[in-house]
Amino acid sequence: MQDRPEEAQAAVYAPTDRTVPTRSADRASYDRELVHAILDEGYVCHLGFVRDGAPVVLPTLYGRVGERLYVHGSTGSRPLRTAGGSGLPVCLTVTHVDGLVLARSAFHHSVNYRSVVVHGVAHQVTDPEERRLALDALVDHVVPGRAADSRPADRKELAATAVIRLDLEEVSAKVRTGGANDDPADLSLPYWAGVVPLRKGYGTPVPNADLAPGIPLPDYLAAR
Amino acid sequence: MQDRPEEAQAAVYAPTDRTVPTRSADRASYDRELVHAILDEGYVCHLGFVRDGAPVVLPTLYGRVGERLYVHGSTGSRPLRTAGGSGLPVCLTVTHVDGLVLARSAFHHSVNYRSVVVHGVAHQVTDPEERRLALDALVDHVVPGRAADSRPADRKELAATAVIRLDLEEVSAKVRTGGANDDPADLSLPYWAGVVPLRKGYGTPVPNADLAPGIPLPDYLAAR
Repeated sequence: MQDRPEEAQAAVYAPTDRTVPTRSADRASYDRELVHAILDEGYVCHLGFVRDGAPVVLPTLYGRVGERLYVHGSTGSRPLRTAGGSGLPVCLTVTHVDGLVLARSAFHHSVNYRSVVVHGVAHQVTDPEERRLALDALVDHVVPGRAADSRPADRKELAATAVIRLDLEEVSAKVRTGGANDDPADLSLPYWAGVVPLRKGYGTPVPNADLAPGIPLPDYLAAR
Repeated sequence: MQDRPEEAQAAVYAPTDRTVPTRSADRASYDRELVHAILDEGYVCHLGFVRDGAPVVLPTLYGRVGERLYVHGSTGSRPLRTAGGSGLPVCLTVTHVDGLVLARSAFHHSVNYRSVVVHGVAHQVTDPEERRLALDALVDHVVPGRAADSRPADRKELAATAVIRLDLEEVSAKVRTGGANDDPADLSLPYWAGVVPLRKGYGTPVPNADLAPGIPLPDYLAAR
């Protein structure tokens, strides 16, 4: 790969001091496609920032457009206001828990998971065209295709919404898969070991009580 | 409630500047039982701390014993080492996404969720008895009853494990439920509105490839 830096750049994010883990380094990945896939499967990220010297971690919706992540909120929100100046240092994390890993030893209990951690400085988006794109991405992230099938934000709503952008540059994924990794001496212990998969799916859509009569369930929901 | 401060303290956490949200304050709750229920239903929390002035948010397992949360990790882990000194300011957040909320307007799209945010200073646990209790809680948090049905940590494993504690003092929950809250003027728009519930469940347990023959699936797993 080192002979072809262009290809290498396309396929992976460059590791940095912050994205090389001190533990379980074998679980870390900088693969761009894997990172995108993990991000696109989530609904809520955990956004961390520093307020008065202390960490704050809040769950929030996000959207992705290529190598850009977008988060939105009220223009009155303190962190989003901060991002309007010199930018807001953030850490944005998305995690999927895929299974419970039961080992013979308490020590080796774990979960199977896939996570992405993004470090960077978030900036407020002011360009009207990019703001529209970002807000569409936020809605389409919840349900692909939905932005085009809803009323776009009007001037008043746009004025009340702050959008911040975080570029995907300093990024890593971490993935644990497979069964329990017990010590050889423990393999004969009389405890069950294995994985309990966690299943996720969609329930039957519940129409709003005030839904006008005659509006069918959209195809993009019926397909689920 | 103000006439009976003792009862009030038992039922709710006292709000602070950090736990009163600037937005959607009607979704905030300080109810102790609700906080416990949200925490107990999760598998992974997002732990935020500050490193070199920048926020870091990492997914990690946790356990609860009464009003104490425990997180563990390698003794080599940087944040956990920091917690061994004067303590590590952290923000620990647990979120469940329960449904996708589709409104007629892009602006009112949302998710139904339940989250808990805990602020505080985490301290390393050095008392051997409390460390054992914490490690049992971490395993039992993954599968209740499992700590007693596995090999406890030996001296070497205990020496390699750092445990930190975060007391539940500065805590809030936030909950969104129900359908889309569109503006009255939008109710007649020809877009479907409602909630797509997200379902979570357990798949069939997968025994480890190296599981000794004759070890049955434990009752606490079969019951799922």
